[in-house]
Amino acid sequence: MRQYASDLACDYVVLSDTAKLNAHTPALAYATRGLVYKEITIDGPSRDLHSGQYGGAVANPANVLSRILASLQDPAGRVTIPGFYDDVRPLSEWEKTHLNQAGLTDEQLLAGTGSPAPAGEPGFTSAERCTARPTFDINGLIAGYTGEGAATVIPTKATAKVSMRLVADQDPEKISQAFDRAIHAACPPSVRLAIGNHTHCAAYQAPTDSPAMKAASVALTDSFGQPPVFTREGGTLPILPLFKQLLGAESVMLGFAVPDCNLHSPNEFFHVADFQRGTRCILRFLAQMANKP
Amino acid sequence: MRQYASDLACDYVVLSDTAKLNAHTPALAYATRGLVYKEITIDGPSRDLHSGQYGGAVANPANVLSRILASLQDPAGRVTIPGFYDDVRPLSEWEKTHLNQAGLTDEQLLAGTGSPAPAGEPGFTSAERCTARPTFDINGLIAGYTGEGAATVIPTKATAKVSMRLVADQDPEKISQAFDRAIHAACPPSVRLAIGNHTHCAAYQAPTDSPAMKAASVALTDSFGQPPVFTREGGTLPILPLFKQLLGAESVMLGFAVPDCNLHSPNEFFHVADFQRGTRCILRFLAQMANKP
Repeated sequence: MRQYASDLACDYVVLSDTAKLNAHTPALAYATRGLVYKEITIDGPSRDLHSGQYGGAVANPANVLSRILASLQDPAGRVTIPGFYDDVRPLSEWEKTHLNQAGLTDEQLLAGTGSPAPAGEPGFTSAERCTARPTFDINGLIAGYTGEGAATVIPTKATAKVSMRLVADQDPEKISQAFDRAIHAACPPSVRLAIGNHTHCAAYQAPTDSPAMKAASVALTDSFGQPPVFTREGGTLPILPLFKQLLGAESVMLGFAVPDCNLHSPNEFFHVADFQRGTRCILRFLAQMANKP
Repeated sequence: MRQYASDLACDYVVLSDTAKLNAHTPALAYATRGLVYKEITIDGPSRDLHSGQYGGAVANPANVLSRILASLQDPAGRVTIPGFYDDVRPLSEWEKTHLNQAGLTDEQLLAGTGSPAPAGEPGFTSAERCTARPTFDINGLIAGYTGEGAATVIPTKATAKVSMRLVADQDPEKISQAFDRAIHAACPPSVRLAIGNHTHCAAYQAPTDSPAMKAASVALTDSFGQPPVFTREGGTLPILPLFKQLLGAESVMLGFAVPDCNLHSPNEFFHVADFQRGTRCILRFLAQMANKP
């Protein structure tokens, strides 16, 4: 994209990688979250030690890792890395209304996850938490003995894979540095610390009142017989902030999948009728954009 | 032992399962630590979730587990389970002197473990921390994705194996219950908690001024040409508190191994000379006990 930026010059990018709200209701997603993904390794003794022989006199890397991880988020679910929320773009009243009318309900959350109760940042609904708010999740943890039964070892090291979903105006590089600083500040000199980087990717948020979004809304209404709901994606599409940065172009997410299409899983499918209605919708969108309704 | 307690009736138990301080210096161990070993499982969603789809709106079991584990020990290394230290028998001045003259030095600790620095409960030396103080160690941790690279999952569950070494007068059952209460208090209702039990074993501490200890000291001095140092073992010998409880008998740890004998490892060895000197030492001990020096 960098190399061919002038050839790729455009007013908008249109992509079909998102889903309708349900079989009947079209949706217009206008935001995706970013992602900073890290790997923390705490190295202590040069081998697994016998906890009877040395327990109490050396720093246990798994104890240290747990304390570091716990220091990054308070029990209520708010991330405590200094500066983490500084640049977060707040939800407008218009967004709140739309997001909570169409977004994930607590009932859907519990049915979809099997979790015993909703949980997350205080002051926000489930629909807001999983699309419009940044997160801190431990994605993997490993240390010491993990087989059946018991082994009294002090592990030589402990590793965590952790990631933060970001929202609009949070700079991945800034968040990455704030994260590293917080980890270093929380880590005692009795262990060795290494932080690896897997992903640095910004969030994307399109204006909802651009000519293209208005045209997309008209095209979806005409194609599906009802107006679209405005939605935010909780996941990450790394190319969207790049389109904006390198081409100066906002993206329009004209997607037509159904939410239960087994996305990226076995038996993923796409309805032929949606393919046909989607094709007609994109034609209507282009006609709208050409001012030929 | 329960069944044959009257047949087993005795004044003392003598066992040879410990080591000398070094090749030349005999040691008389008079204490072992106990052990309570637990397994904590935090269950959340019914499967690994996509952290983009649900991140921020459900409790992440690995986040919760880290917070619970971190709540059990302060950053300085002191266990924060309420009541944990209530019954701990403090070190006497005599014990402190002997333990710190003969026990593990910081230099030996660093050379033996490869840890970057000594660490542990404030106000105690390394020699005291790993033999005379109770501990909390995470022995194993596992959750989510632990392979190469990155996967943006919220793990369905997170598991920790944890153990506490106990010292004299701490009741394993009481500590076990205090641990369970602390875990339950720290666990939010947005996950499911299960606590499993692997080991409940008390510490053992023999009086150092009993007739048998005096006899052992004389026998060791005569056999090795120098008096023994009095030591504490950091590990656990579950049968010792049972001898005391069921037979009413204190134990005398007349051990003759060298510390670098590859205990429980490949190429474990025992010097023939120590076998011969040890045999003579036990005969001298029995003669002392019979008042025939």
